[in-house]
Amino acid sequence: MRNVCLIGCGAVGTIAAYVLEKSGQARVTAILRSNYDAVEEKGFDIDSVDHGKIQGWKPAKVLPSISAAAPLKAEEQYDFVVLAMKVLPDTVPPLVTDLKSLIAENTTLVLLQNGLDIEQPLATAFSQTIILSGVSMIGSRLTSPSSIFHEDPDILKLGPYFHHEESLPRTVQLDAARHFVGLYNLGLADAITRNTGAECILVEDVVGARWRKLLWNGTFNTLCTLLRISVGELLRSPGRVSLFEAAIHEMAAIATAAGYGEYVTEDIIQETIRGTPESSPFRPSMLVDFENGRPFELEIILGVPLRIAVDLGVNTPVLSGVYDMLKVVLWTLEERSRLST
Amino acid sequence: MRNVCLIGCGAVGTIAAYVLEKSGQARVTAILRSNYDAVEEKGFDIDSVDHGKIQGWKPAKVLPSISAAAPLKAEEQYDFVVLAMKVLPDTVPPLVTDLKSLIAENTTLVLLQNGLDIEQPLATAFSQTIILSGVSMIGSRLTSPSSIFHEDPDILKLGPYFHHEESLPRTVQLDAARHFVGLYNLGLADAITRNTGAECILVEDVVGARWRKLLWNGTFNTLCTLLRISVGELLRSPGRVSLFEAAIHEMAAIATAAGYGEYVTEDIIQETIRGTPESSPFRPSMLVDFENGRPFELEIILGVPLRIAVDLGVNTPVLSGVYDMLKVVLWTLEERSRLST
Repeated sequence: MRNVCLIGCGAVGTIAAYVLEKSGQARVTAILRSNYDAVEEKGFDIDSVDHGKIQGWKPAKVLPSISAAAPLKAEEQYDFVVLAMKVLPDTVPPLVTDLKSLIAENTTLVLLQNGLDIEQPLATAFSQTIILSGVSMIGSRLTSPSSIFHEDPDILKLGPYFHHEESLPRTVQLDAARHFVGLYNLGLADAITRNTGAECILVEDVVGARWRKLLWNGTFNTLCTLLRISVGELLRSPGRVSLFEAAIHEMAAIATAAGYGEYVTEDIIQETIRGTPESSPFRPSMLVDFENGRPFELEIILGVPLRIAVDLGVNTPVLSGVYDMLKVVLWTLEERSRLST
Repeated sequence: MRNVCLIGCGAVGTIAAYVLEKSGQARVTAILRSNYDAVEEKGFDIDSVDHGKIQGWKPAKVLPSISAAAPLKAEEQYDFVVLAMKVLPDTVPPLVTDLKSLIAENTTLVLLQNGLDIEQPLATAFSQTIILSGVSMIGSRLTSPSSIFHEDPDILKLGPYFHHEESLPRTVQLDAARHFVGLYNLGLADAITRNTGAECILVEDVVGARWRKLLWNGTFNTLCTLLRISVGELLRSPGRVSLFEAAIHEMAAIATAAGYGEYVTEDIIQETIRGTPESSPFRPSMLVDFENGRPFELEIILGVPLRIAVDLGVNTPVLSGVYDMLKVVLWTLEERSRLST
């Protein structure tokens, strides 16, 4: 049995925890923050396209803090520490500090998170730890703190974030990724048999996969949040061409300038657009966070790509304006929460 | 006694109606739409920095439609027809048609409205009618359909919109403006004696005054509406420099390219910014309209200047993005009102 510590049981993390335990080869210690009480009391209710309906499910262990999860003896050490919470600028430095208590010599870090360059602070702090970087394409959402509705299959692209190759040979990093992918696909075996579309895919260039996902996240998420509309409304609105199509091409231009053009070709852009129907009432997670008064992942979704655009001289009038405006929106959230306390 | 027909008793129009009647030389027939029932029943309650507290005031006549106001005999003809309602693209063509029943040979049209190029459709339809164009700097707002809180003095810059000078000599157009300014200042006599700051000022170049006002309206109004924050919040936010100051300089650049540089100098820009304190909780009228589900004046405030920018090759990345986004916001309002009926 593999020991897994998974931090952040939102819509992505909970399904990952479930899949890992379903493999029969992993025991998951889950660390929850905002939904700890609800889950500790009654477990998760999951309605999943991949796994069916599950009532009151709990991972092997549910804990309210990282410190409570620190292994006390060698056999409790973690094989994998999986990060599945939002990446916010303020939370990264304390997280890096806290993680030290979880990471042993043979622990592999696994990131199931959105955005760009999220691996860098971890690679700096944990130079001898293998980091697997995953881009989840799952369609799932929390419908209550302990209820998950999972409607689109769990497609997870995962590969090593190669770093310190002089002491961590590339083949060793790739082997760790193969190991995790195998474990995950074991947990997806039923869904794969039923052809739901679920699959964990080993990718050697996970940064390319991240840029490809940013075509969607950096445009739909951000514009829908700013305009407080669904993805379908954005596509039907007068902003489809002037804002959305302009933005997605700006994002592709940054990725291309950064050397990832093959992941953001015009065909891929059109496929990304076609994949989202005009009738869709879907509200991206960034908008849902905002509507619930929670900070959202602006920096890793838009701030980082735009700093790369500046460095490489790529012109991004729409995305830059959207970023500046969403910074005001985030500030407004903070300001109002400060005033109300 | 002058016969005045005034259309649109919002916060600007009602004070203008009151001032004109207070002159003792004008009788006002007011045409109200949304607030007709409330005002017909109990009149206006006005709390004014210029005029004090007035309860239950009504103009000489209150009517619910332009057709009801059409003069039936010569002595009922209007000397002035004053337009004080919002300027929305859909409402201009039917208004022009309706106005025909109000405008006689000696009628002067007076516009107390925001925005740019609002006079053109009227000059085309009424080539032999003098058009006076007014920019109101009043600080007043409706606190109910029939209650007005007026906190900053009534400063009205007004001048002829010169047109068809071959048949309407320039001096005749200027005389009409002097006449109206005199009438208005008669109504402001008490306030002027008490030095409230109120004044009606004859300007020969009203287009310059409109550009100057757009420095404020085109930036604070639009950004606060998009971000749903007060003018003070905008100034305190991280968008102050990247959005607001960028936008106000873009607007000045358009005005300068259009030949109105003297109205939008750096000194005037800084004065415009200084005039709005960071502590201000003021929510611009465009935002108030939006928050009440009403369409707002996007075209004459931002659409027209941006079309001029395109013609003159002025680069406006911030304002263009704001405009495209506010078009989506307007579309969302229409879409939701369409779905709810």
